[in-house]
Amino acid sequence: MGPEAGNFDRCKQKRGANNNMSYLLVIPGAISVLALISAYAFNRSVVRHPQGTDRMKELQGHIRAGAFTFMLEEARVMAITVLLIGGLLWILFYWEVAVAFWLGSFLSMAAGFIGMNAATHANARTTEGARKSFKDALAVAFSGGSVMGLSVAGLAVAGLVLVFIMFHWLYDPATLHIQTRHLFGIQGAAVNLIKGALVISAYSMGASLVALFDRVGGGIYTKAADTAADLVGKIEMHIPEDDPRNPATIADNVGDNVGDVGGLGADLLESFVGAIISVIVMSLYLYVGRNNPQMKNIVNTLGISGGLNPSTYWWLLISPLVIVGGGTFSSWLAILYIRFTGKASNVEGILMRGTRIAAVLTAVATFLFCWFSPLNLNIFYEVLLGLIAGVAIGFFSEYYTSTTYKPTRELSKINQDGPGISVAEGMALGMLSTFWPVLILAAATIGAYLFGNLLGVAFTAMGMLSFVAMTVSVDTYGPIADNAGGIATMAELPPEVRERTDKLDAIGNTTAAIGKGFAIGSAAFATLGLIASYMWSAIGKATAVLPPQLPIVGQIAPNLSPNGHPIAVGAYVLAGLIVGAMVPYVFSALLIRGVSHTAGLLVEEIRRQFKANPKIMSGEEQADFNRCISITAHGGLHKMMLPAGIAVATPFIIGLIFGRYALGGFLVGGLLSAIQLAIFCGNAGGAMDNAKKYIEEGNFGGKGSEAHEASIVGDTVGDPLKDTVGPSLDILIKLMSVIALVFASLFPIFPRWGI
Amino acid sequence: MGPEAGNFDRCKQKRGANNNMSYLLVIPGAISVLALISAYAFNRSVVRHPQGTDRMKELQGHIRAGAFTFMLEEARVMAITVLLIGGLLWILFYWEVAVAFWLGSFLSMAAGFIGMNAATHANARTTEGARKSFKDALAVAFSGGSVMGLSVAGLAVAGLVLVFIMFHWLYDPATLHIQTRHLFGIQGAAVNLIKGALVISAYSMGASLVALFDRVGGGIYTKAADTAADLVGKIEMHIPEDDPRNPATIADNVGDNVGDVGGLGADLLESFVGAIISVIVMSLYLYVGRNNPQMKNIVNTLGISGGLNPSTYWWLLISPLVIVGGGTFSSWLAILYIRFTGKASNVEGILMRGTRIAAVLTAVATFLFCWFSPLNLNIFYEVLLGLIAGVAIGFFSEYYTSTTYKPTRELSKINQDGPGISVAEGMALGMLSTFWPVLILAAATIGAYLFGNLLGVAFTAMGMLSFVAMTVSVDTYGPIADNAGGIATMAELPPEVRERTDKLDAIGNTTAAIGKGFAIGSAAFATLGLIASYMWSAIGKATAVLPPQLPIVGQIAPNLSPNGHPIAVGAYVLAGLIVGAMVPYVFSALLIRGVSHTAGLLVEEIRRQFKANPKIMSGEEQADFNRCISITAHGGLHKMMLPAGIAVATPFIIGLIFGRYALGGFLVGGLLSAIQLAIFCGNAGGAMDNAKKYIEEGNFGGKGSEAHEASIVGDTVGDPLKDTVGPSLDILIKLMSVIALVFASLFPIFPRWGI
Repeated sequence: MGPEAGNFDRCKQKRGANNNMSYLLVIPGAISVLALISAYAFNRSVVRHPQGTDRMKELQGHIRAGAFTFMLEEARVMAITVLLIGGLLWILFYWEVAVAFWLGSFLSMAAGFIGMNAATHANARTTEGARKSFKDALAVAFSGGSVMGLSVAGLAVAGLVLVFIMFHWLYDPATLHIQTRHLFGIQGAAVNLIKGALVISAYSMGASLVALFDRVGGGIYTKAADTAADLVGKIEMHIPEDDPRNPATIADNVGDNVGDVGGLGADLLESFVGAIISVIVMSLYLYVGRNNPQMKNIVNTLGISGGLNPSTYWWLLISPLVIVGGGTFSSWLAILYIRFTGKASNVEGILMRGTRIAAVLTAVATFLFCWFSPLNLNIFYEVLLGLIAGVAIGFFSEYYTSTTYKPTRELSKINQDGPGISVAEGMALGMLSTFWPVLILAAATIGAYLFGNLLGVAFTAMGMLSFVAMTVSVDTYGPIADNAGGIATMAELPPEVRERTDKLDAIGNTTAAIGKGFAIGSAAFATLGLIASYMWSAIGKATAVLPPQLPIVGQIAPNLSPNGHPIAVGAYVLAGLIVGAMVPYVFSALLIRGVSHTAGLLVEEIRRQFKANPKIMSGEEQADFNRCISITAHGGLHKMMLPAGIAVATPFIIGLIFGRYALGGFLVGGLLSAIQLAIFCGNAGGAMDNAKKYIEEGNFGGKGSEAHEASIVGDTVGDPLKDTVGPSLDILIKLMSVIALVFASLFPIFPRWGI
Repeated sequence: MGPEAGNFDRCKQKRGANNNMSYLLVIPGAISVLALISAYAFNRSVVRHPQGTDRMKELQGHIRAGAFTFMLEEARVMAITVLLIGGLLWILFYWEVAVAFWLGSFLSMAAGFIGMNAATHANARTTEGARKSFKDALAVAFSGGSVMGLSVAGLAVAGLVLVFIMFHWLYDPATLHIQTRHLFGIQGAAVNLIKGALVISAYSMGASLVALFDRVGGGIYTKAADTAADLVGKIEMHIPEDDPRNPATIADNVGDNVGDVGGLGADLLESFVGAIISVIVMSLYLYVGRNNPQMKNIVNTLGISGGLNPSTYWWLLISPLVIVGGGTFSSWLAILYIRFTGKASNVEGILMRGTRIAAVLTAVATFLFCWFSPLNLNIFYEVLLGLIAGVAIGFFSEYYTSTTYKPTRELSKINQDGPGISVAEGMALGMLSTFWPVLILAAATIGAYLFGNLLGVAFTAMGMLSFVAMTVSVDTYGPIADNAGGIATMAELPPEVRERTDKLDAIGNTTAAIGKGFAIGSAAFATLGLIASYMWSAIGKATAVLPPQLPIVGQIAPNLSPNGHPIAVGAYVLAGLIVGAMVPYVFSALLIRGVSHTAGLLVEEIRRQFKANPKIMSGEEQADFNRCISITAHGGLHKMMLPAGIAVATPFIIGLIFGRYALGGFLVGGLLSAIQLAIFCGNAGGAMDNAKKYIEEGNFGGKGSEAHEASIVGDTVGDPLKDTVGPSLDILIKLMSVIALVFASLFPIFPRWGI
C-alpha cells in the first residue's frame, strides 16, 4: 500500500516487489528494438539495390546533397534553440526535465534524418527498379517507406521506455514524496509522480518543437520550389515537369525529401508521442488524486476492483506503451506481408489490405492486453473508437480530394469557368469538407468521454495513432515514387519508366489521404488530452494542491478567487478563447507568405538564369541548381522563425500576463480554429491539386486548355494550404498545449494586476 | 417594494406611482418619431430632385422594377417562413411572443424596403446632380443614405418602445407573478419579467431572421450579377464596366440596391436590436435574481445605493433605449451638419467630421444620462469603450484594405507574379488581418467585464452601435454613388459625370470600411451578450428556477446532474464547441457556391444572348435584361434557403438532442469561428478588390496588363467573401444565439438518452 494522495508529508517506503508491474516495460522495449533493427535491415536492403545509370547516380547525388545540406542547416538552428530552451528548463525546473526535453528533440530530429536518408537512397533505386518492372519499383519504394515508418514508431516508443528507465524513481508510487524548490519567487512543489508528469511532458515538448521546425521549414522549402519551378517552367517556358533544363528541378526534388519525408516523419513521431504522453500524464494525476471524488469517478471507468493501488497503477501507467507496442508489432507484421507478398497485380488492394491487417491486429492486441490486465474493456473500446474514427475521417479526406468521387470531378469541370470561380469553388469545397470529419470528431469525443471521461479521450487519440508505423510507411513511399519519377524524366529514361513511377505515385496519393485523416483527427484528440492534462495540473495544483474539486475542461472558471473575492475569470477565459482562435489564422498567413515570398525570389533567379544563359534552354549547358537550392533553403530557414516563435511565445505570454484560466481558454480557442482550418486547407488544396491532375488526364480539354490554365492557378493557391499550412497547424496546437503543460507552474493563477 | 425574487407565489401589488420611471420611455419614443419623420422628409427631398434625361429615367425604371420584383419575391418567401415560425411560437409559448416576433420581422423588412426605395430614387438623381456639380451629386446621394440611416435607427427604437408599451404588464416589477402552462409535456413556468425577456428576444429573433434572408439572398444576387457581368463583359468581350450592351448590367445595378442597400439596412437594424435586447434581457434577469450573490455582484457594478428596487429597475431597464435614443439624436444632428454644411471641397473630411460629431455627442449624451440617473458612470465607460473599440477595429479594416496603406499596395505589386500567388497572398493578408481586431476585441471584453461583468459586455456592444443612424447613412451613400455611376455610363453621359460619381464612390469606400469594423465588432459583442443571456436563462432557470449559483459563460459545466449522478457534461460542451466552430465554415461554403453557381448560369445566358443576336454587341438592339434579372433573382432566392435553414435548424437540433450545455458550447464555438472568418473574408476580399482598383489607376502596368488580369481573378475570389460571406456571418451568429435564447426552455438540460 502506498501512502494516500492527500498525505503530502515527506514519506518513503520500501517498494513491494510483487506490486511492481514495471517489468511490463519489457514488451514495448523489445518491440521498439525489433522495429529499429528491421528499419536498419530495410535500409540495408534498399542500399543493396542498383542505382542505375551514371546520370541517375549524379542526380541522386545532387538531391541527397541538397537535402542533407538543408536538413543539417535546419538542425543547426534547431540545436541552438533546443539547447537554450533545455537550459531554461534546467534552471526553472529540474535537470531531469531538461534531459527528457533534449531526448525528445534528438529523437524527433533523428526520425527526420533517418527517413530522409532512406528516401534519398530509395529514389533512384526505385527508378532503376521501374526500368525492370513495376513490381521491382514497388519493392524498393515501399522498403524505403518502411524504414521511416518503423523508425518513427521504434524511436518514439524506445524514447519513452528510456525516460521511464532513466528516471524510474519519478514514476514509482512507492517513493511518493514532495520536493520543493524556490526560484524567482515561484514555489515549485511537486509530488514525485507529478514531477514525472513534467519530465515526460518535456520529452513530448522536445519532439513537438523539432517537428514544428521540420514541418514549417520543410513545408516552405518544398512548396516554394514546386511553385516556382511550375510558374516559370510550365507556364512561361512551356517545358514539362521535372525537365532537367529547369534550374529549380533539383530543388523541387529536394523539397519532396525534406518536406514530405523529413517533415512528415518528425510530425507523426510528435503526434504519436503527444497522444501517448497525455494518457501517461493523466494516469499519474489519477493516481496522485485517486481519493478525490471526481478522480474516483474516472478511475471507476477503468473497472479495477479496489481502485488504483501501486500494482494496478503500473498496469495503467504502462498500458499505453504496451498498446502502441502491440500496434507497432502489428504494423511490422503487415509491412512484412506487403513487402513479401508475391503478387504485384493489385498494389492498391495490397496496401489497403496491409493497413487493414495492421488495424485489426492492433485491435486484437489491445483486446488481449485489456483482457489479461486488471483493467476492464473500456480502454479497448476507446482504442477501437480511435481506429474507427481515424479511418472514417480518412475516408472523407479521400472523398473530398480524390478524382474518383464527385466533389473533385465537379471542381475540375468548374475550372472551365476560369480561375476566379474555380479557386472560390475550391475554397468552398474545403470549407464544406469540414462537416463530416467534425461530426465524427464530436461523436468520438462524446463516445470516448462516456467510456472513460477525459482519460478516454486521450486513449482514443492514442488508438488512432497506435499503428503509426504502418501509416507512415504507406505515406512515405508516395514521395519516394514522386522523386523516382523526377529522376526518370531528368535522366531521360524511356517513358514507360515514368509511367510506372506515376502509377506508383497515384496509388500513394489515395493511401496518403487516409494518413492525413489520421493526422488531423489524432491532432485534435491528442490536443484535447494535453489540454485536459494542463487543466488538471495547472488549475488542480493551483487552487490548492489537489483540491477536492479538480476543475476540468469546460468547467474552467469558478467565479471566486481562492480568497473569496469576486473575480473576472469569465472575461479572461473568453478573451483567451477569442485570441486563441486567432493564432492559427496568423500562423497560417505567415506560412503562406513564407512560401510565396520564397517562391518569388526563386522565380526571379530561374528567369535570370534562363535569360543570362540561353544554352540552358537549348540543353547544351547545365543550369545552376545549387543557387536555386540555396535560395530555397535560405527562404525555408528564414521564414520558419516567426511562425515557430509565435507557437512558442504566445502560450507563454498569455500565461504570464493573464494567468492560467486565460491560457486554458486560449488553448481551447486555438484547437477549435486549428481543426477547422487544417481540414479546410488540407482538403481545399488536395482537391485543387487533383482537379488539375484530372484535367491533365485529358478531361475538360486536357493539358493546355483554358480549364488547365485555371487549374494551375488553383493548384498554386492550394499547394501551400495542403502541404505547408494544414500539417503545420496540427503540430501548432499540440506544441502550444504541451508548452502550457510544461510551464504551467510558472504562470499566475489569475492576472497579477487588477481584479 | 416589490416581492423578493425567491418568492414565486402568485402575488400582485398595486404599483407605487412614484417608483415607476417608465415615463423615461418618452425620450427614445420621441427621438424615434423624429428620426422617422426626418427620414420621410429626406426621402421627399430626394424625390423632388430632377431625374435627368429620358434614357436615365428609363434605366432608373428598370433598376427600380428589378429591385422591387426581387425584394417582393424575397418578402413572400420570408412572410411564409415568418408566419409559420410565429405560429409555432404562439403554440409553444404565448401569443405575445408571436406578436413581438412578427413586429421585429416586419420592421426589419420595412427597413430593407425603405432603404432600397430611397436608393433607387436617389441613383439617377445623383447622376443628374453630377451633371451639374460634385456638390449637387453629394447632396442627393447623402440624402438617400440618410433616409436609410434614420429609418434603421428610428424603426428599431420605435419597435422596442412599442413592445414595452404593448406588453407593459410583462415589464412591470409590481406585477411580478408566475404563469404556468403545460404543452407536450414541457412545463413553462415564467415569472412575468422572464416572460418579458422571452417576448423581447422574439422581437430580436424576427429582426435577425429577416436580416439573414436579406443579407444572404441579396448578397448572392449582387455578387453573382457582378461576377458574371465582369467575366463575360470585361474578360471575354472586352467591354467596360456598366456598358449598356452587357445584358447583365441592369442586374448588376439591381444587385447594388438589394444587396448593399437593402441587405445592409436589415443587417444593421438586426445588430442594433440584438445589442439592445441583450442588455434588456440581462437587466430583467438581474432584477429577478437580485438577491442571488452572483447577481448582486453584477448589480454592485451599477453603483446603485440600496441595489435594485422597482424604481432603479426602471432606470436600468430603459437605460439602453435612452442611450441609443441619444445616439440617434446625435446622429440626426451630425446628418444635418453634413447635409447643410456649405463647403463641398473636402467631402471625406466632412463625412469623417460628421461621424466624429455623432460619436462624441453620443458619448456626451450617455454621460449626462448616467450622471442624472441613479446609476454610476460604469455604463458610460462601457459605452465609451464600445465606441473606441469600434473605431479602432474600423481603422484596421481600413488599414488592411485601403490602397493608401502598405498591405493592399504590396498585394497589388504581387499581382505581377500571376493570379495563383496573388490569391494566396490575398488570403494570407486576410488571415493576418485578424490579429489587431481580435486583440482589440479581447481587450475590450476584459475591460467591459471589469466595468460591469457580462452586463458590461452587452453595454459595450450597444455602445458600438449606438450611433448606427450615422454609420448606415455613410455606408449607404456609397452604393447609391456606385449606381449613379452605372447610370452615367449606361446613359452615355459625358465622362466628367462618371468621374464625379466615381470620386463620390471612392470616398464612400473609405467610410464604409469603418462601418464594417463596427459591424464585426458589434456582432461579436452582441453575440456574447446574447450567449450570456442564454446561459442565464437556460442554465439558470433549468438547474432549479434561479439557483443561488447562476452559471455563466466560461463556467458552464458542473460535473454533476441535479440528482447527483456524475454526468459527461464536459463531453457535450466540447462536442458542442467543435461542431459550433464548424457551422460557419459550411455556411460560408454554401454562400460561395450560391454565388458561383448563380454566376455560372448567368454567364451562360449572357454568352447565349451575345451569340444569338450579334446586334446586341454592335449596339443596334437592346439585350434582354429581364432574363438576366430573373435568373439572378431565382439563384438568390433558391440558394439562400439551405444556409438560412442551417442557421435556424442547427441550434434547434443541438439543443433538442444534446441539451442546453451542448448548445452553450455550440454557440461559443460558432462565435469563435465566425469572428475570425468574418474578418478574414471581409479584409481579404476588400484588399483584393482594392488591389485591382489600384492597378486600374495605372500602377504596375495598369488596365490590360498581366497584373490587371491577375487582380481580376483575385477580385472574383474576393468579392463573394467580402460582400456575401463576411456580412452574413455576422448575422448567423446572432441569429443562432437568439434562437437558442428564445427556445431554450424546450430543450432538455442534459441529453435525454445515455448518462
